[in-house]
Amino acid sequence: MNDAAIHRRGLMLVLSSPSGAGKSTISKALLQAEPQLAMSVSATTRTPRPGEVDGKDYHFIALERMKGMIDQGEFLEHAKVFDNYYGTPRAPVEAALASGKDVLFDIDWQGTQQVAANARPDLVTVFVLPPSVEELERRLRGRAQDPEEVIQKRMSKAADEMSHWPEYDYVIVNRDLDVSIASVRSILHAERLKRVRQVGMADFVNKLRGA
Amino acid sequence: MNDAAIHRRGLMLVLSSPSGAGKSTISKALLQAEPQLAMSVSATTRTPRPGEVDGKDYHFIALERMKGMIDQGEFLEHAKVFDNYYGTPRAPVEAALASGKDVLFDIDWQGTQQVAANARPDLVTVFVLPPSVEELERRLRGRAQDPEEVIQKRMSKAADEMSHWPEYDYVIVNRDLDVSIASVRSILHAERLKRVRQVGMADFVNKLRGA
Repeated sequence: MNDAAIHRRGLMLVLSSPSGAGKSTISKALLQAEPQLAMSVSATTRTPRPGEVDGKDYHFIALERMKGMIDQGEFLEHAKVFDNYYGTPRAPVEAALASGKDVLFDIDWQGTQQVAANARPDLVTVFVLPPSVEELERRLRGRAQDPEEVIQKRMSKAADEMSHWPEYDYVIVNRDLDVSIASVRSILHAERLKRVRQVGMADFVNKLRGA
Repeated sequence: MNDAAIHRRGLMLVLSSPSGAGKSTISKALLQAEPQLAMSVSATTRTPRPGEVDGKDYHFIALERMKGMIDQGEFLEHAKVFDNYYGTPRAPVEAALASGKDVLFDIDWQGTQQVAANARPDLVTVFVLPPSVEELERRLRGRAQDPEEVIQKRMSKAADEMSHWPEYDYVIVNRDLDVSIASVRSILHAERLKRVRQVGMADFVNKLRGA
């Protein structure tokens, strides 16, 4: 037996942040740079929008089926937003992890808490913060010429999301996009080297020890 | 208040491995690449060898002083090897951590267990393994034309050291030196981003939240 017998169980990488902190850009760069990492595809009961592809943007499923899957515990997390359900099916994530692939999740603190309750040892959570109030406001305003009331609602939602940073393993202040991308990649690479993720290591060491 | 108010508490990075796994080479490369990282300097009661510099290679101290310091709990770890004492003084490590510097330790499993008991939250432990029995034996033999008995003793000591890999946070199989160096650097960078090491983050987030 040589070290080829060691393989790695994949991990679930959660990125959470308030809107306007740069998370989407970081996620996109991460997926391009890391071939072993794939985005988790959520299921939803809402109607596809023009251009959305089933199985890529979302798994579009019927309401009754979604409710049945929720009852059977087939989601790692789920939420009802207005009249629509959203959730992360457990089976494809489990299959990816077992084959040594990592899965990226773009979910909020509520989704993260649910996933943590269902899959803690495989989970790595990262919270991304904007560098300053001024920068956060600039990014939230910058999107369009929205009424002040809408901007204030976004700021309030961001403040709410940010109150949950102490529940995360890692915290990144996104001052510089390239540095932040490198930081998340370091976290991913380091977490892959955790003892607990390395399957077959005990047998490998026993062989080294002549045991 | 901006993000300049966030500062980082340093960490203690322990590298352990059997002799012949490449740890010394990795340590040297790491110290060159990481200006925020410094090697921990041990204290010892043994006589300096020719060329050894006090305060750089070791802090050379008298037996009675060393014993007194041990009694006062002034060492993070210590051991008696034949008639000489060796140990890691706590004060300089504490000062480095408080100023945001990281400290590298080249200690065995026994030293690691002692440090873990004394300083767990600041501690990150990495175990380095050779890629195969053949390679380990080649490296242990390669050093000199030593008698077979000496080689066997080294192999036995390596086997003993390796039995402690499950006590470490991270495990690296040193197949390729450059990859292993990059791996330890990723671990260091990721651990620096751990929420628990970021002092002042709560105040920073409160400001972002307008709280």
